[in-house]
Amino acid sequence: MTAYRDLEKRFRRLGAIGEAAGMLQWDSAAQMPPGGAEARAEQLATLKVLAHEALTHPAVGDLLDAAEQQNDLDAWQRANLREMRRQWLHATAVPADLVDALSRAASECEQIWRKARPANDFAAVMPALSRVLELTREAAAAKAARLGKSPYEALLDQYEPGAETAAIDRLFASLAESLPDLIGRVLDRQAAAPPPREPAGPFPVERQRALAVRLMERLGFDFAHGRLDVSLHPFCGGTPDDVRITTRYDETDFRQALMGVLHETGHALYERGLPAAWRRQPVGEARGMAVHESQSLLVEMQACRSREFTEFVAPVLREAFAGSGPDWDADNLYRLNTRVARGFIRVDADEVTYPAHVILRYRLERALLAGDLAVADLPGAWNAGMRDLVGIVPPDDRRGCLQDIHWYDGAFAYFPTYTLGAMIAAQLFDAAKRADPAILPGIARGDFAPLLSWLRTNIHGKGSLLPAAELIEAATGRPLDAAIYRRHLEGRYLAA
Amino acid sequence: MTAYRDLEKRFRRLGAIGEAAGMLQWDSAAQMPPGGAEARAEQLATLKVLAHEALTHPAVGDLLDAAEQQNDLDAWQRANLREMRRQWLHATAVPADLVDALSRAASECEQIWRKARPANDFAAVMPALSRVLELTREAAAAKAARLGKSPYEALLDQYEPGAETAAIDRLFASLAESLPDLIGRVLDRQAAAPPPREPAGPFPVERQRALAVRLMERLGFDFAHGRLDVSLHPFCGGTPDDVRITTRYDETDFRQALMGVLHETGHALYERGLPAAWRRQPVGEARGMAVHESQSLLVEMQACRSREFTEFVAPVLREAFAGSGPDWDADNLYRLNTRVARGFIRVDADEVTYPAHVILRYRLERALLAGDLAVADLPGAWNAGMRDLVGIVPPDDRRGCLQDIHWYDGAFAYFPTYTLGAMIAAQLFDAAKRADPAILPGIARGDFAPLLSWLRTNIHGKGSLLPAAELIEAATGRPLDAAIYRRHLEGRYLAA
Repeated sequence: MTAYRDLEKRFRRLGAIGEAAGMLQWDSAAQMPPGGAEARAEQLATLKVLAHEALTHPAVGDLLDAAEQQNDLDAWQRANLREMRRQWLHATAVPADLVDALSRAASECEQIWRKARPANDFAAVMPALSRVLELTREAAAAKAARLGKSPYEALLDQYEPGAETAAIDRLFASLAESLPDLIGRVLDRQAAAPPPREPAGPFPVERQRALAVRLMERLGFDFAHGRLDVSLHPFCGGTPDDVRITTRYDETDFRQALMGVLHETGHALYERGLPAAWRRQPVGEARGMAVHESQSLLVEMQACRSREFTEFVAPVLREAFAGSGPDWDADNLYRLNTRVARGFIRVDADEVTYPAHVILRYRLERALLAGDLAVADLPGAWNAGMRDLVGIVPPDDRRGCLQDIHWYDGAFAYFPTYTLGAMIAAQLFDAAKRADPAILPGIARGDFAPLLSWLRTNIHGKGSLLPAAELIEAATGRPLDAAIYRRHLEGRYLAA
Repeated sequence: MTAYRDLEKRFRRLGAIGEAAGMLQWDSAAQMPPGGAEARAEQLATLKVLAHEALTHPAVGDLLDAAEQQNDLDAWQRANLREMRRQWLHATAVPADLVDALSRAASECEQIWRKARPANDFAAVMPALSRVLELTREAAAAKAARLGKSPYEALLDQYEPGAETAAIDRLFASLAESLPDLIGRVLDRQAAAPPPREPAGPFPVERQRALAVRLMERLGFDFAHGRLDVSLHPFCGGTPDDVRITTRYDETDFRQALMGVLHETGHALYERGLPAAWRRQPVGEARGMAVHESQSLLVEMQACRSREFTEFVAPVLREAFAGSGPDWDADNLYRLNTRVARGFIRVDADEVTYPAHVILRYRLERALLAGDLAVADLPGAWNAGMRDLVGIVPPDDRRGCLQDIHWYDGAFAYFPTYTLGAMIAAQLFDAAKRADPAILPGIARGDFAPLLSWLRTNIHGKGSLLPAAELIEAATGRPLDAAIYRRHLEGRYLAA
């Protein structure tokens, strides 16, 4: 057995452990009774230890060295080896006691945050957050040394392999410069017309679910390889051959579950389309969080909030909910689905203001990690940033720097992937429509096959063969460009 | 760390892997879309390999030797160590290539059997079954040598630790002697009265489910630590803190799902009542398949087919299904639930004829393993045994020696646990009623708390502290006695 084959065998085992953990996590959110939580935590912790032991086995370093000397590997195998090396570097860069300390600190901080947020008590969580930040800095420094990257990039590399702050700085600066003005113009324009009207419910859960299933099937979701269930926080989980998405239903507002399902279906189609020949190998995995988010946003934001799709779906909605009257007109529904508002809460934001929320967090977390911003000064910096970027100031920290779980749970350098994803989505959709003129007419009659076919070829089926930047350039003919996202926003929100 | 503590840590990991596998198996049967099967098989195979590697790690043998020299262990720890040794002996007794060959042969044979059974073609599966038998004999010999038991007992020990053929022979001989006459008398007595009438459906699934949940709660099933779902073959799975039982619904016959749920709830209460302080340790596990089956049969057969319970449940059933008239009288329902008939199929058998089916299989599998019965002669021996024990001869092998999956799937020495379980159930229920006179009046008003309390103390909470024979003797004051089961049958089916 060559060193490379040996590694494939080891990573195949790792992949299967990861799949098992993925299914159990789905179960925790979608099926598990509350009394099962403690045992489940033990099961998942055990799988994590087993995976970590397999990845950091003393033989793996030597095998990687030896395999990298092999000259009989094809492009997929070389890419697989590159991803193995990357996973191994991350797993071995940080001493076990620091990993453990960080994990405990994050878990403790998250517990405190769960009470501090509703109590609007940033002071209560400050010490725990400071501790998480301190340990994260240590871990980032250790990873930076091994990966040959800056500390922030070393953290970013866990979520978005190969991403560079210089590129993100450029992209975000370009957006940040134009966003405040753009938001103002969109709001002025909206204010000139009467507001859209919310169709009145109730919308029975069973009808919402039947509609969701019907649209998922149209999008190309294969129920022989997946399920739709309910959980408190919607997500896409499971494995490529058994994709489990979830939503939650509100009987007074069908759009929340529906848009959530379309979003998660975008994630699901990506997972399902990953290269079958590379299941449970690193190169067969999704390319990173930004590309993953691009797939959900491409479906939800680019395709399904388009005027074309809304024209198709309006009569489907009327039929599903026995709706009639002007509230159910495609034009009214389109204006509802593209409504813009300055708000305090990121997860409720529309696609025009969302990037402003993300850019704020990106700037703040870089300053926190660099030591340029003290934890005590976070609320003030948050509010100042909100004023500059979104144009409003939160009345309290609950609606300010306490709103997101990420930092309190130890996830630094994750936020930029949301807006990178939105930009990638716009660029891919733009390229896809130009590459295949059948895509938009397809969407207009609820036929997503042409779009899915383009995505399968250019994104899904590539797995982790290419770094994200190369993947995007290969698919669209140019590097990621903030101007395309800006044009998308202007086209949708300002054009006649 | 002492050797014992080291072992506890290793077995805790094994226990967590086993729990993870248990949840994934439940998911496979109750949730998984068909397209997920291949990936799931890989996940489960990986967990199995990880567990096997942990159990057969070179250090474990030395640790067991060292721990057995420790004189600081209490009774639970010593019992835990005894069960660790037993698991380790089973795992290390058979060479890996033989384990692998047997697993492949069984899997292949099962595939062939799945087609041979509906085709009534025993000849088609004969070569594969012969191969399974041959490899099973080899494995049994290897285990026998390590465990110091006979080959059949070495196999039996996997399912029913410590069980001895001499004792089973005695118990079964006593039953076999009286059964043909008993069956005849019960049937004569039944024939003297008009047959009971089946209440007419349809019985909507949602109502059946609501009824099942209501009765499960009465029995003491805690939905904060468990679920009820649907699967093709009902079972009890999951883990002690998250017990997942399943059933299947037939809208023309509510009794099938209901009795199945009561049966699985008996299993579930056992799992849930296992000693919490010993979770994920061998001594914290259920005591074996016979005791497990005793818990399901105690609930289903002893308690819930009793006249007392039927009086309680009859109005509940009438309310659940808006039933009225003589079909819904407690007396008619009781006669339905205690109907006896000679039949060809074990899984459809009543509690009077069931032991005859099991004794037949026990005799045949012992003869097959000993080489006293050739595979080619199995159909003839089966039919002769049916004539002697049940009093009828199957018209074909489909309803004869092809009916059960067990042997074709490599499970020899499992069958006796069914009837041992039925005998244990009768003896435990008899003892419980004498120990606490509140038990039967409780059941008569749908209050299972007194019964559950006795079971928690005397069976569930003991885990694997004692060998099964000692557990039964401690709980009932005497060794397992076939006369008690016979008295139960005579009391229910022949008394006035």
